Amino acid sequence: MNKNFISDKFQALQLKIAQELEIIDGDTKFKSDNWIRKEGGGGITKTTVNGKILEKGGVAFSSVYGPVSDVMKKQLNLNSEEFFATGVSIVLHPKHPFVPIIHMNVRYFELNDGTYWFGGGIDLTPHYIDDSLASKFHGKLKAICDKYSPDFYTLFKSQADDYFFIPHRNETRGIGGIFYDHIDETCGISKENIFKFCQELGESFPSIYAEQIEAGVAKEYDEAHIAWRNHRRGRYVEFNLVNDRGTKFGLYSGGRTESILMSLPPYAEWTYSHEINKDSLEELTLQKLKKGISWVQ
Amino acid sequence: MNKNFISDKFQALQLKIAQELEIIDGDTKFKSDNWIRKEGGGGITKTTVNGKILEKGGVAFSSVYGPVSDVMKKQLNLNSEEFFATGVSIVLHPKHPFVPIIHMNVRYFELNDGTYWFGGGIDLTPHYIDDSLASKFHGKLKAICDKYSPDFYTLFKSQADDYFFIPHRNETRGIGGIFYDHIDETCGISKENIFKFCQELGESFPSIYAEQIEAGVAKEYDEAHIAWRNHRRGRYVEFNLVNDRGTKFGLYSGGRTESILMSLPPYAEWTYSHEINKDSLEELTLQKLKKGISWVQ
Repeated sequence: MNKNFISDKFQALQLKIAQELEIIDGDTKFKSDNWIRKEGGGGITKTTVNGKILEKGGVAFSSVYGPVSDVMKKQLNLNSEEFFATGVSIVLHPKHPFVPIIHMNVRYFELNDGTYWFGGGIDLTPHYIDDSLASKFHGKLKAICDKYSPDFYTLFKSQADDYFFIPHRNETRGIGGIFYDHIDETCGISKENIFKFCQELGESFPSIYAEQIEAGVAKEYDEAHIAWRNHRRGRYVEFNLVNDRGTKFGLYSGGRTESILMSLPPYAEWTYSHEINKDSLEELTLQKLKKGISWVQ
Repeated sequence: MNKNFISDKFQALQLKIAQELEIIDGDTKFKSDNWIRKEGGGGITKTTVNGKILEKGGVAFSSVYGPVSDVMKKQLNLNSEEFFATGVSIVLHPKHPFVPIIHMNVRYFELNDGTYWFGGGIDLTPHYIDDSLASKFHGKLKAICDKYSPDFYTLFKSQADDYFFIPHRNETRGIGGIFYDHIDETCGISKENIFKFCQELGESFPSIYAEQIEAGVAKEYDEAHIAWRNHRRGRYVEFNLVNDRGTKFGLYSGGRTESILMSLPPYAEWTYSHEINKDSLEELTLQKLKKGISWVQ
């Protein structure tokens, strides 16, 4: 299983997910933007705006290679000269305040000395947290993890809690999910099976999100819910620009800005010392933006 | 001239600027939020929303002291145990797309070993750059600088170009202004005169901005100008959260989040690969978001 095989599979995964999302949305088409990286490789960034469900979203594929730059050597603590990296990244911002923002990523990295690793994850950022939907989301992730290793879910769930955390707000970004990085066969799983795990995660993505969408759109909303959604989008921006190691590494190392920042919402709001009502749905959500909650029932 | 004297003067400066801005706006009142820092000191954050001119803005004063934390030691390369810091910070986001966003800061830092320094600056971020207004703005800053040192303007202008730059967009945040840091009497100016320079800069702030407001509001605007303003506000958010060393240091070192992020606009927009028309006002503005432009005629 070589790098081109993985890259081809990831590209096919991108296409499949975008097609399924078009069906789920019912009124949107992804626009493809092909780009070339001058040091080697390139990608396809598929974006959509103003769908019935998806207000703004992107499904990005990239497959890049070339010399390991000084920034990469320092930030990734690498000692090799040539790298190859491929992956699929998704961020979707729905219109409906009761439909969560979702993020998915699977990636593969290889160096000329033969070392490689996989990374990825899915996490959910509900504007309003619904325990039962959170439990369904985590349950599905756990079921996928459990097929590959009894240790994956607990470890990757805790890593998501730590990764998707906003220290300056003392809040998690949402209800987390799973996050893994630097996984190779030393974890006791063969390279083929780690790849299969990434693929299965990616292929499950549309149906996992569809379930959240279906439950969310059944709820009625008004202007106050929209205002809260916009406020929470502000937090999403803060996490992505201040805390997200992937975004920062991408921007600082000269990655393709538009593909990296496709993760930002269509718009976001900021209010000084934003206040919420006691015992409101908004307060209940804030109380659950914590690490370490066992969502799976 | 001890630290308490400077702190008192800065607090008076905050009050004066807020009062003058209320008069300039004509329909807004700043709300005061007093806060205490548990390790020592505190501040007053004055914010306003939905004025006639100012859609969102803050004029913050702080005077804090205490042990130098490990983060501070590392980030500021310090070897002392106790610090004192006081300053006034302003960011104003106007409603009218032809009125620029403005930022001003003056600050004083002192360590228990007796070392001290001043820092500060003013910079302007027009949604639409107008050469004559940019020239007036820089001309006023130069006139203040020239009263204290023939070197200040050239040096501080170039430092602002470097500081207010967004590498991942290859754009300056706006037309710059002046930026200075770590200034003490070794620059050949007495401590008293550096302080006077900071004070004069602060006291000139309302009239400098009033001139920009008066010229801006005379222009008519429509929805397309508003959309561009919202897009440019997105860039402002990117600079502040990704690139601004002050913001990052504040957030990472446990500063008061609400006071630091009062700099963010009321809302901001992001569009994938945002496009503008050839030879439009928007394109003319983009062409001037460059370092090294001599704005003073």
